[in-house]
Parts: sequence; C-alpha cells; structure tokens
Amino acid sequence: MPSTIYTPAKLKPGTLRITPIGGLGEIGRNMTTFEIDGKILIVDCGVLFPEEHQPGVDLILPDFTPIKDRLQDIIGVVLTHGHEDHIGAVPYLLKLRPDIPLIGSTLTLALIEAKLKEHRIVPYTLTVAEGDLERMGPFDLEFIAVNHSIPDALAVCITTKAGTVLHTGDFKMDQLPLDERITDLRAFARIGETGLDLFMSDSTNADVPGFTPNERDIGPVLESVIARSPRRVIVASFSSHVHRVQQVLDAAYANDRKVVLMGRSMVRNMGIAADLGYLKVPKDVLIDAKKAVNLPDNKLVYMSTGSQGEPMAVLSRMANQEHQIVIGKGDTIILASSLIPGNENGVYRMINGLMKLGANVVHKGNAKVHVSGHAAAGELLYCYNILKPKNVLPVHGEQRHLVANANLAIQTGVPEENTFVAEDGTVFDLKDGYVHQVGQLDLGFVYVDGSSVGEITEADLKDRRILSEEGFISIFVAVDKQTGKVLVGPEIQARGFAEDEAVFDAVVPQVIKALEDAAKNGTRDNVALQQVVRRTVGRWVNTQHRRKPMIVPVVIEA
Amino acid sequence: MPSTIYTPAKLKPGTLRITPIGGLGEIGRNMTTFEIDGKILIVDCGVLFPEEHQPGVDLILPDFTPIKDRLQDIIGVVLTHGHEDHIGAVPYLLKLRPDIPLIGSTLTLALIEAKLKEHRIVPYTLTVAEGDLERMGPFDLEFIAVNHSIPDALAVCITTKAGTVLHTGDFKMDQLPLDERITDLRAFARIGETGLDLFMSDSTNADVPGFTPNERDIGPVLESVIARSPRRVIVASFSSHVHRVQQVLDAAYANDRKVVLMGRSMVRNMGIAADLGYLKVPKDVLIDAKKAVNLPDNKLVYMSTGSQGEPMAVLSRMANQEHQIVIGKGDTIILASSLIPGNENGVYRMINGLMKLGANVVHKGNAKVHVSGHAAAGELLYCYNILKPKNVLPVHGEQRHLVANANLAIQTGVPEENTFVAEDGTVFDLKDGYVHQVGQLDLGFVYVDGSSVGEITEADLKDRRILSEEGFISIFVAVDKQTGKVLVGPEIQARGFAEDEAVFDAVVPQVIKALEDAAKNGTRDNVALQQVVRRTVGRWVNTQHRRKPMIVPVVIEA
Repeated sequence: MPSTIYTPAKLKPGTLRITPIGGLGEIGRNMTTFEIDGKILIVDCGVLFPEEHQPGVDLILPDFTPIKDRLQDIIGVVLTHGHEDHIGAVPYLLKLRPDIPLIGSTLTLALIEAKLKEHRIVPYTLTVAEGDLERMGPFDLEFIAVNHSIPDALAVCITTKAGTVLHTGDFKMDQLPLDERITDLRAFARIGETGLDLFMSDSTNADVPGFTPNERDIGPVLESVIARSPRRVIVASFSSHVHRVQQVLDAAYANDRKVVLMGRSMVRNMGIAADLGYLKVPKDVLIDAKKAVNLPDNKLVYMSTGSQGEPMAVLSRMANQEHQIVIGKGDTIILASSLIPGNENGVYRMINGLMKLGANVVHKGNAKVHVSGHAAAGELLYCYNILKPKNVLPVHGEQRHLVANANLAIQTGVPEENTFVAEDGTVFDLKDGYVHQVGQLDLGFVYVDGSSVGEITEADLKDRRILSEEGFISIFVAVDKQTGKVLVGPEIQARGFAEDEAVFDAVVPQVIKALEDAAKNGTRDNVALQQVVRRTVGRWVNTQHRRKPMIVPVVIEA
Repeated sequence: MPSTIYTPAKLKPGTLRITPIGGLGEIGRNMTTFEIDGKILIVDCGVLFPEEHQPGVDLILPDFTPIKDRLQDIIGVVLTHGHEDHIGAVPYLLKLRPDIPLIGSTLTLALIEAKLKEHRIVPYTLTVAEGDLERMGPFDLEFIAVNHSIPDALAVCITTKAGTVLHTGDFKMDQLPLDERITDLRAFARIGETGLDLFMSDSTNADVPGFTPNERDIGPVLESVIARSPRRVIVASFSSHVHRVQQVLDAAYANDRKVVLMGRSMVRNMGIAADLGYLKVPKDVLIDAKKAVNLPDNKLVYMSTGSQGEPMAVLSRMANQEHQIVIGKGDTIILASSLIPGNENGVYRMINGLMKLGANVVHKGNAKVHVSGHAAAGELLYCYNILKPKNVLPVHGEQRHLVANANLAIQTGVPEENTFVAEDGTVFDLKDGYVHQVGQLDLGFVYVDGSSVGEITEADLKDRRILSEEGFISIFVAVDKQTGKVLVGPEIQARGFAEDEAVFDAVVPQVIKALEDAAKNGTRDNVALQQVVRRTVGRWVNTQHRRKPMIVPVVIEA
C-alpha cells in the first residue's frame, strides 16, 4: 500500500515540524523528530523486532535518512523510558554522532548507559525527573510522571513559540501502582487548561475496551501459586519489569523461598534497579544459582527470561531438556507476561513441552499473572477529556491501534479533521493551533543482521523466504569457450529440496543436451547459457516434483 | 522429548487394541485405529497444517506405518465429519488401497467424494445417520448426532466383545443450534447406564472455562453490522461453515442485499450443502460475481475465504490491492472466524492493510461475530457426568489441551490411573473394563510437498530454516588433478546474504591460497578440499560479518 510520497516545503521560521520516523504502523522502533528554527529535538529512538516474514533479521531500526545530514542540528534525544522499542536504536544513532545529548530519567539513562557500554560509547546525558523544566534551544520541556511496566517513565510536554505538544511515551493509568507513582493527571489538567495544540499518545491498547487492571492484583495470585507449589517454581517475565520481579521476590519471601535470577539481561537490569533503589530486595532472598542446588526444591523460585518462547532463552531450553535444570512432575512454571502476537506457536510449543515433562504451567490464560503496561480505551478517554487537545496524532501502534485511538479522540469531541492517522515519515507542521500534513517521506526498514546495518535488502529477504519454502538447486557447468562443449559438470547441489541427490541423475543429461543445442545454435553468452540451464532444470522440477525451488545456475567458459 | 519406544506384544484374541495415530499433541491429522480379532477399524484420517518451523510444507499426514502391512485387514474408515483435519488424508490412504470403505454421514461423504474426485478416486461408501446401528465384522457401531461447526457431524460408539468405546469426533453442546440438531445427550445417558469402558473426547477447548456461546447469537450481530454498513460488506469465514454462511445469507436477505460467494472451496462446499439441503438459500439472494458489478455497493455482500490471512486467498489479495475488488472507505470487512494460533501476524497484517485502505474491520476482538465449534470445559463436565466412563483418553489436542481434558475427567471422579494423557503411537489394550498402555510406536511426520509424499525429511526442514535465517554462499572451484592448482573459480554465488556480490572479492584470494596450501601439503581428496573451502569462507564470514550462512563448497578435479 504505497502512500503518495511528497517532499515538504522548506520549514518556515516559527513553525514546528513534527515527523514520526518510526512507531506508526508497527509496535516498535518509536522515534519522532521535532524541528523549529533550525534545531531538532528527538523523542525516543527504539528498535523493532522482526516478524516471520523478515527471517534472520536481528533488529529493525528507524530509517535515519531525514536526520543524516542534520546531525549537528540535533540538540538532544528525550528517552521516555527504558524499553528496547524506545532506546534500542540509540547506539546506532550515536555511531553517527556520539555527542548527541540523551535526556531521561535516572533508570532510563542507567539502562541505556549499560547498553552503550557494550558498544563502547560513553554518552552525554542529562538526568531529569517528573516536574522538571528544561530549556533546550527553542524547546521548553516539561517532564511528567507516567505509569508503565517499567519504573521511572516520563511523558514530555514540548512548548515552542509555534505551540504546545504533549507526547505520552508509553503509559497506563494504574491508580494503585506498586511505587505509588501514578500518571500525573493534575499536570495533564493544567496543560489542558493552558491549551494543548497537539496530543501524541500511546495507541497499543486503544482497541481494548475498559481499563487495564492494577499491577497490584497480581501479587496475591503469585503468592498463592507459589504457596501451593510442591516443588520448584520458575517465573518468566520481561527482564526490565522491575515491579513484576518485585512481586515475585515478595511472594517468594512470604513463602520462605529463595530466588535465583536467571538470564543475562535479567541479572543486569535487576542489578541496576536494585542499586538505584527501584527494586527493594527483601533480606537474603536472592541467592546464587550455585548455592541453589543445596536447597530443597520447595524452597526455590527461579526468575527467568524467555516468556516469549525464544528458542535460546532459559525456559525454552528447559522445555527442550537442554538446560541443567531438569523439569519434572511437581515443578510449576509461571509465565507472568503477555503473549506478543506472532509468538503463539513458539510459546505453546514451549508450554506443551514443559507440560509433557510433568510441569504445571500457569499463564495469563488460566490465572491472573499478568496485566498490560498500556492504557486501554477507558483510560485514554480520561486523557482526552482532561486534556481537550486541539489536534491528535496517535502514535505507537499498528494501523488498527492508531485508528482505534483516533476514534476515541473523535468520540470525546476532537474534530475528525484534526485527528491524524499517519504513518512513518508523515510530516506535519504546527502553528497557531493548526496542524497540517505537509509531506510524506519515503522511509524504509533498516535491517541489522550480524554486524551489518542496512545491508540486508527486501530482495535478500524475498530470497530467504523462497529458500525457506522451497530450498535451492545450484548447477555448475564449465563449457569450452570455443566449441561450447561441456567440460566440467553439470555439478548439482541442493539443500532443503531432497536429501537423496540421486534424484538429479535424471536431469543431468537434459542439461547437457540443452547446453549443446544452445551451442549449436551459436549461443555463447554466459547469461544466456545460464538461462538455458535455469529453464531446463525449472521445467524438470516443476513437472516431476510440482515444486519451485530457487535455481542457481553458474556457467563458466574455460 | 523422546518417549520410550517399545513394541506391544502380539494382540490376544478378544482384546481390543486402540492406537491413536494422529491428533494427540497437535490439532490436526486425527486418526485412530481399533483392532480386534485380526480386523481393523479406523476413525478419521485427517491432515495437519504446518507451522512456521516446517517451512514450505503443504500438508502433514499421519504416519501410516502401523497399518501399511495390514491394509487388507481394514474393514472401514469412519469419518466423524467433513473437516480437513478429519478427512484430508483419506486420498493418501486410498492410494494404498482404493477399496477401503468410507463410512460417514451424507454431508461428510459428499465432501470427501468431491475431494477424491480431484485425486480421480471413486470410493466405496456407506452412508449412515444418527441412530443408525451397523455391524462391521467384530465391531458394532452406533452413530450419534453431535453438534459442531459443520453440519451432520457424528460421534461413534464402538462395541466389541472386549468392551465399549465412545469417540466423540469434534463436538460442542450448543443447545440452540440453527438446525436444531443437538449433541444427543440422551444417547450418552443410555451408553453411560449400560457402562462405558473408554471415552475418547475432543480436547480443543478443554482449557477454556465455561461454555461455548450459541451460534445463534451471531446472526443478529451480523445483521446489524450489515444494516449499518454504508457500502460493500465482505464476510470471511471457513469454507465449510454452512451455518455461518446460512446466517450471512439470512442477514443479507433481511437487508435487501445480494450475496456473491468467492473462493473455489467456498463455492464448491456451499454448492454441495445447498444441493443436499443443509444450506437453505433465500430466494434470489445468491448472484454471480459478474452480475454484482451492476449493483450498487450497498446492495452487496461478498462471502469469502481467507479469514486466516492466507496470502493467496481473496481477502489478503484485497488488502494488498492485488484483487479486482478495490477496497475503500465505507467498505466493511467481517472476519467471522477464530484466529488460529500462529496466524496472528498474517491476520493482523491483513487487518492493518484493509484499514489503511479505509475499510472498517469487524472481528471477534471487537464484535460477537464468531463462536468456537468445540466444547468448552463446562460442556465436557456434562459429558463426563452423564457418561461416567471407566477410562478416559482425551484426543484432538496439544499436550496442554489433553492435560486440561484429563483434569476435567479426574474432577468428575474418574480415577487418575484410568485417565490417559497419551501421544501419537501410544498403544492401549482394552479388556473387561481395564485399559492398559502396552506400547509406544515411533511415528513421524509425513510431509507432503508438491507431488512428493514423505520425501521431505527433518534434515531438509532444518536446511530450510538455516537458509531462511541466513541464506547461503556456494563456492565452486575446479582444481588440477595433478598439481592441485586452481583451474576455474572460485566462483561464488550467494542468495539471502547480500545483494552486492563485490563483497566476496575479499575472500577469493583467501580461498585460492588455502587450496594451494592444502595442495602443497599433499591434500588431493575432494571432500577434504571442500572442507578447506568451507572453513576459509566460514571463518571470513563470521569475522567480517558476524553471520553464519550455509556454506556449500564444490571442489572438482579436472
């Protein structure tokens, strides 16, 4: 569905230009640029995780094209919170210009600094907290507490001479959060009364009716599941979900069990959270994996990653009996996490595997062991009504989420023509309370694969999909430069097609004959001869096997 | 998780041997064999659809190994209903012995006959209906009406001198079905009173609490969605869901709209259902696609397949703007179907695409436009209580479903030791009310790919997965037989790795040097030289690119 691409006119002084670079049309790689009077402010810079039609890709980055030639004009990157889809692309941005200042809360900056350390980058940072006001060139920033599935998340209100924009980052409106840090509706009310020109809000759960339940409801469930478990308990969750881990630590402590943290990111993140005081570890509850073997099974809780069925994570390896912890009857597994769409097969395969080993598997489907981190429709309605924004640009969501969020805005009285369902690269200008779409950039997916960034193309992915569906057949032939006679080969190799290579005995004489016929007709050109081989093998494989493997002919003249 | 494989002892006369060949540990390829006194009865013979870790596979069949040498002893195949996961493998079984009788209801046999016609097989059939009693050799069969998401489904009660087994097929207990044909609980009561030795029941929804809502609840929702739609309505559903299509026809008729059936299987199945009286087409409501173009958009309903986001189906092609029907603002799409796990990404991609074109998309998530075809936990409890079976073998489900179903049996008082969570190939003997596991066969997945059946191996699939993740690099070299000098090549080809082949310029001299060094050290063996090439290219690609593509070296001596 290609949109009409058009370049915006040159930005006039005193007008604010807003360009979502990522996060619209996808859950991930969130990034927006704000530009006024020659200066650019960025909000978030995250990664997107690939789907199954993007095989082998490690990460997907926002397309930095619009800012590549403007690096010196960037005055800072506001990071709303520490999740990968908001901070994961920062190392790739800082590789372009390492001294771009990063602005965020204590925990957010600690998490990005740990990540940057792996890339050997020491960033320039500015720590902010809720209530803080910062002037960054033409941008006046106010930071506002929001509640999310990671502590210390912030919304940012950006005021310029062109108008005021409120960007929520990710948030929900839990009224009884564990850390008592609620989304600051008073601040929203004040901004609404002053007049909000543009509201950009998290759309993830806009199509979920009602309200996200309280995180606090999960604690008692965890505690009772652990209390009833005859043997070990293994809890899997996201490695940055400090409050979820807090509840597991508390439930374990209440049941006189010790907790072992498992998985590199879990150990690292909880170390940071505990050091900074976000995670309050009950006395002596955490122990080392090595010491755990000396304790009885019913005194142990393992806290691990791998809730999405990731094949290399601890939990999948347990399900496949490839981990030193051997799951058996009486063990209880708790998946205290959402099931991210697309991961179902992997997660259910893991659950089936764990159950086959005798474990009891507790998950969102059969117990209240997870709540979402995002505001549902009911919560968003509160926001629209207290803010009464002049214009609305839903962010952070697939098309279905953006449309649902826009419809909520319209229902609360925002005029339909002021409600924008946009996509990555849509360019908006704001001035005097009016927002207009002024351009549509042609932005792509930037694939990270191994050490390569942006080298893997859509054509490579298409090749991979064909290879995965059908495998390939390669045919090598060397022909005499003068006579066209076949000197070496055809040497046929195939993978993913059939194990028995004797299957190709039938086509070898056909290839030789086709090449010799072509030679007789005067064809000497390599490319043309390769076409002859491709056609011959293609026809044979289609007729004999009703299959369409990739055919890779190589004809060399010697 | 390999189970202990052991061969059962020879079957004693007068004992009934029950072997689930497929459908345990998976939703699909349902098939069970019953053997007594040298005669074999089969219940169902379905296919399984592949998951993403089985790329390129068209279908998966049950492993016929246990019956391959016993074909003449098979006295018939009972087909409980006409869904692919119960009848889809029949053509492959009949290719082994075409005159195996097929036993089923009118609609079931009509659907399998249509399928067999494509394979040019005319089967021997025995039509049965609810209440019918048939003696087939040592098996006394009673057929019992059950309600499901396709009309004319039957459970079968198998009585032999060894005892009585009730196999439900797929079912639910809708108490207000459209065709007023309810699951016959009176028959269940009678069988329970006589004494049921083994109950084999559908586990699909055993982990869903409560009761499946009534199909009848959907009609008014469909009708009101259609009434409110300003333009065309496109409804997608499974092509065999006669009652769902019935409700769409009725809702269209009530709204003075015409219906166009789209998709080959939809047209074929509804033709059969209408001919046999299962689908009651309101007067003149069906029209041809060609005539539809002459009607205003708000007088049309399209009834199509493709609810699972299948890329080649009508609906995905509409979303991708590859269909003659161009979706636009005001069009309404109704997905009157479940979202089968694993299809989420594809379905959401399709929904996002349709919404981006301006369509309103109504689905299970935002309106009551679908109910399941399978009994939930509450319904299964009714069955256990009215039947009071001595032994229970849950079928038709993944491990998590089988375990949930077994737990329901245990909760109603079936002793835990008489409740069997088994897998494909587990062999049970029944005699005098006692069921024992007597063996575990080693059964595999039989993959259909193009015209090949059982030729694609797990190794091929592993190759395909590697190819899809990483692509491949093939290197062809011809070396002099005498000197080991490189005569031709290295000629490098890659797919799914990088588009720019200049990337390999760096490794070519390394390959030549490695081969010449090997030659100097006296290595002449092809396989050893191929290893040299593989190692050289592998090391280079790992160091330079941090990637692990499949490396396919070919070294030829000339």
